[in-house]
Amino acid sequence: MEMAMEKQRIVILGGGFGGVYTASELMRRINRISKHEADIEVVLVSEENYITFQPLLPEVVSGAVEQLHVISPIRRIAPGVVLYVRHIEKIDVENKTIQLAPGRVPRTETLKYDHLVIALGNTLAHGMVPGLYEHAIPFKYLGDALRLRNHVVQMLEEASVCHDPEERQRLLTFTVAGGGFSGVECIAEMEDFLRKAVRAFPNISETDLRLILVQSADRILPEMKENLANYADKLLRKRGIQIVLDHRLHEVSADRAIVMNKANKELEVIGSRTVVATVPTEPHGVIQNTPLKCEKGRIVVSDELESPSHPGVWSLGDCAAVPSGEGYTSPPTAQYAVRQATICAENILATIRNQPRRHFKFAGLGKLASLGGRRAIAEVFGFTFSGFFAWIMWRVIYVEKMPGLDRKVRVFIDWMKDIFLPRDITQLNVYDEQQVRREHLAAGQTLFHQGDFGDRLYFVVDGEVEVEVDGKVVATTGKGDVIGEMALLAHKGRSATVRAVKPTDLVSLSSDAFDQIIKYVPGAADAMNKIHQERIEKVHADQAANGAATE
Amino acid sequence: MEMAMEKQRIVILGGGFGGVYTASELMRRINRISKHEADIEVVLVSEENYITFQPLLPEVVSGAVEQLHVISPIRRIAPGVVLYVRHIEKIDVENKTIQLAPGRVPRTETLKYDHLVIALGNTLAHGMVPGLYEHAIPFKYLGDALRLRNHVVQMLEEASVCHDPEERQRLLTFTVAGGGFSGVECIAEMEDFLRKAVRAFPNISETDLRLILVQSADRILPEMKENLANYADKLLRKRGIQIVLDHRLHEVSADRAIVMNKANKELEVIGSRTVVATVPTEPHGVIQNTPLKCEKGRIVVSDELESPSHPGVWSLGDCAAVPSGEGYTSPPTAQYAVRQATICAENILATIRNQPRRHFKFAGLGKLASLGGRRAIAEVFGFTFSGFFAWIMWRVIYVEKMPGLDRKVRVFIDWMKDIFLPRDITQLNVYDEQQVRREHLAAGQTLFHQGDFGDRLYFVVDGEVEVEVDGKVVATTGKGDVIGEMALLAHKGRSATVRAVKPTDLVSLSSDAFDQIIKYVPGAADAMNKIHQERIEKVHADQAANGAATE
Repeated sequence: MEMAMEKQRIVILGGGFGGVYTASELMRRINRISKHEADIEVVLVSEENYITFQPLLPEVVSGAVEQLHVISPIRRIAPGVVLYVRHIEKIDVENKTIQLAPGRVPRTETLKYDHLVIALGNTLAHGMVPGLYEHAIPFKYLGDALRLRNHVVQMLEEASVCHDPEERQRLLTFTVAGGGFSGVECIAEMEDFLRKAVRAFPNISETDLRLILVQSADRILPEMKENLANYADKLLRKRGIQIVLDHRLHEVSADRAIVMNKANKELEVIGSRTVVATVPTEPHGVIQNTPLKCEKGRIVVSDELESPSHPGVWSLGDCAAVPSGEGYTSPPTAQYAVRQATICAENILATIRNQPRRHFKFAGLGKLASLGGRRAIAEVFGFTFSGFFAWIMWRVIYVEKMPGLDRKVRVFIDWMKDIFLPRDITQLNVYDEQQVRREHLAAGQTLFHQGDFGDRLYFVVDGEVEVEVDGKVVATTGKGDVIGEMALLAHKGRSATVRAVKPTDLVSLSSDAFDQIIKYVPGAADAMNKIHQERIEKVHADQAANGAATE
Repeated sequence: MEMAMEKQRIVILGGGFGGVYTASELMRRINRISKHEADIEVVLVSEENYITFQPLLPEVVSGAVEQLHVISPIRRIAPGVVLYVRHIEKIDVENKTIQLAPGRVPRTETLKYDHLVIALGNTLAHGMVPGLYEHAIPFKYLGDALRLRNHVVQMLEEASVCHDPEERQRLLTFTVAGGGFSGVECIAEMEDFLRKAVRAFPNISETDLRLILVQSADRILPEMKENLANYADKLLRKRGIQIVLDHRLHEVSADRAIVMNKANKELEVIGSRTVVATVPTEPHGVIQNTPLKCEKGRIVVSDELESPSHPGVWSLGDCAAVPSGEGYTSPPTAQYAVRQATICAENILATIRNQPRRHFKFAGLGKLASLGGRRAIAEVFGFTFSGFFAWIMWRVIYVEKMPGLDRKVRVFIDWMKDIFLPRDITQLNVYDEQQVRREHLAAGQTLFHQGDFGDRLYFVVDGEVEVEVDGKVVATTGKGDVIGEMALLAHKGRSATVRAVKPTDLVSLSSDAFDQIIKYVPGAADAMNKIHQERIEKVHADQAANGAATE
């Protein structure tokens, strides 16, 4: 019994279902049982102080559920846990330490652990599709859903005062990449919201809207049985959603999604100012830098959820390759994560107490997908359901699953309200535009037009752009060049049109950041003036050469 | 009748009560009456597509009302209005045009008007208090209330893992400047929220919290009768809120509020990481650049709401000095703005139709202030009320006043829920930190400590700082200097402590913006390396001079 008397620290990384439910289960057992168990400290590190109930995220987009009701405070689910709301800088499994990024107080913090639970889920793999990082909206956290909702309303507002028909169509085209659960539910709820929201915009009609779902497989919802997927496919198409199968997202920029036909490798351009990406995913970067063995990007663990190479390191949820006990690896869903959490908590305590451990075994209960407009599809205990009844079941099951009674009540009230109140179309502009940001241009895309208002300065990281004055190309420029400083320095319209010749990556700076940097950063004003002077001289020389000298 | 047949455009600036209700009233009358009135176009320019119901903003802080329920979509209140969600760049009353800033499409837009309604309200006067712009949280729009709420939760999260007792106290001290309606309601709801929220934080107790209300007058709520203000004063003090009378906000920085005793001009420092400012206010900047005559910062208009010097320019609400018809100027409250809106709409239509115009006359209905914890004070029809009954009245009156039935229902449901559900303590990190931002240091304030994580680079705009290594001041530096590049370039801890000697203004750059600029901005890397090299040489020279040469 001596071992158990020593102070043991269990550190859990990740504020999703895997991490929070492991913490909850540990606290429940520690609080319940003997006194000396209080010598176990449970620390949870999460980027947020709440857990997001992802199945309801699409309903935040449509406004059927209030924003804050799809999240639940971790402190209330796992009372007594020591919570750090911090980024994780490094996992050091050799020295058994975790390094946390600084918060408001600018000190890094190093946590020692006896047992480590890694439940970091996965993230959008930005590197694989050019422009994805810069211009696609991910769809995983509450922040994503809020941004998407506000972005969609902004598109309607812009379209309502837009005089250019092409631009208007791009503003009213909404593209979702990924035809799995998340993509299908997202586009279904977006359609539901848009159809109701346009009623408040007298000069936008339902038929002006274009919604496109891009899926790389030959059908949507590959996770579900084919008859249900077909039902969903027909329903979405009937509502006017275009479903583009066998196409993969190839490139994204601010005003378009480029998709590739998997059969003939041909590219197709979709003019769209909204691109939501639910694929592809990859493990959290901090895992990739550990010596832990991975399999298809997921940490290899035994059916006791422990790393074979590093005892004391446990992993579960979407980031772990957990044998399901049914001959396959557990799919990355909440129902598996929650059950793994119970086993993980039990096995850690069993290890501390030298007791026998349990093996994870779970066959799954069923699968549900909401299709908006009070329709859903479900596979439960081998039976399949579709339509209104499946939708009621979907609601009942998810409300039941929500952590905390107060959230259950709140979501239930939201749904009641949704029956008789109109949808909210307010656009919350609480998101500051990034002052320094990366941008991607597709070949042929115009960065700005001659005469446009000069609101950003650009540095070319890679690629090639052409500069056009009065309809004539006057220069081509590329890597390392500065674009657009003239309008910012002179506070006037753009003196030329700039268009990408090849796919081009840029870093841009907002005009207010530019003003501050020019004013206060030593050397920046000189460097900028020099570039500006050279450019003016070059323009004059070109004009003289063309016999168009003004003097 | 010919005049009325010409296409007339009425442009309304401002999305508050004055602007939106004028638009609503115009649309109602235009839609109702004759056909040719459709030749009148009503354009509304607002920064948001919704109106904020400010009296309920404090309840967003406490979580008693859902965020989105205190706002209402303008399109639903004024159906048919042409809405531009844009910043206003310039009002040109000579050429009768309004210039709008670009939106997603980078084109400025110029609107011509026949009649102009200016209802831009007022804004926080940043220039008068050093550090106010940089570090105080304003409290006027929904965005402000959301930021404040998340900030308050962040302070609790940080305090729960803070090991330094002084820092912990600063994190748990919440200061509000301004003892009028807005300040009193804000601190009352903040107290209500904090008292309930700390229950979820095992190592923070109610007695650790410090709430301070700073008021420059000799009592709070000067707008209300003295007996009601005294009641409010006693109630807030009983709840543990410190009320500092006869003190004015003098300076704000990230970790303190400095207040000045009005009697003896002595300064007092309040260590506080939260400073909410409701005072002082000034008119919108765009008004200050017009030739319109102002009186105490408010546009002078007749009791018909028209500018005497510029016929066709109308103004109302907080930004206008409207004679109340009772011998005083209308106070800046919603009840006056709403009634002015009706007169303004009528008089504009009367002018177009050559009909007689009406004079504004209103004595006010009453005043209400909520004190949190189901207490309020009210002056209605000459009677005064305080306590629970006044609070019930406060709720009934404000729900009744809310624009739109659906909002009334939503807010009512929120209040019902609030009775039996716990308060929400989730912290929404959807607000990106500014990459380039201004900062203010009070004299004696530490910018960073030796060994801290280097997360920002600083440029000294004005003031003086000292650099301390191992407890010894090694240098003093000021305007034009760069601070903190060493830690960012070398990706290591701060090599020195930097402290302000005088009040100091800085511009700071986040490390990720720094990395991108160093990488892509021509000249920036060279300039930075030069500064860095000089600094290293100087340090070495100093070490040699001090006989501490390392080689």
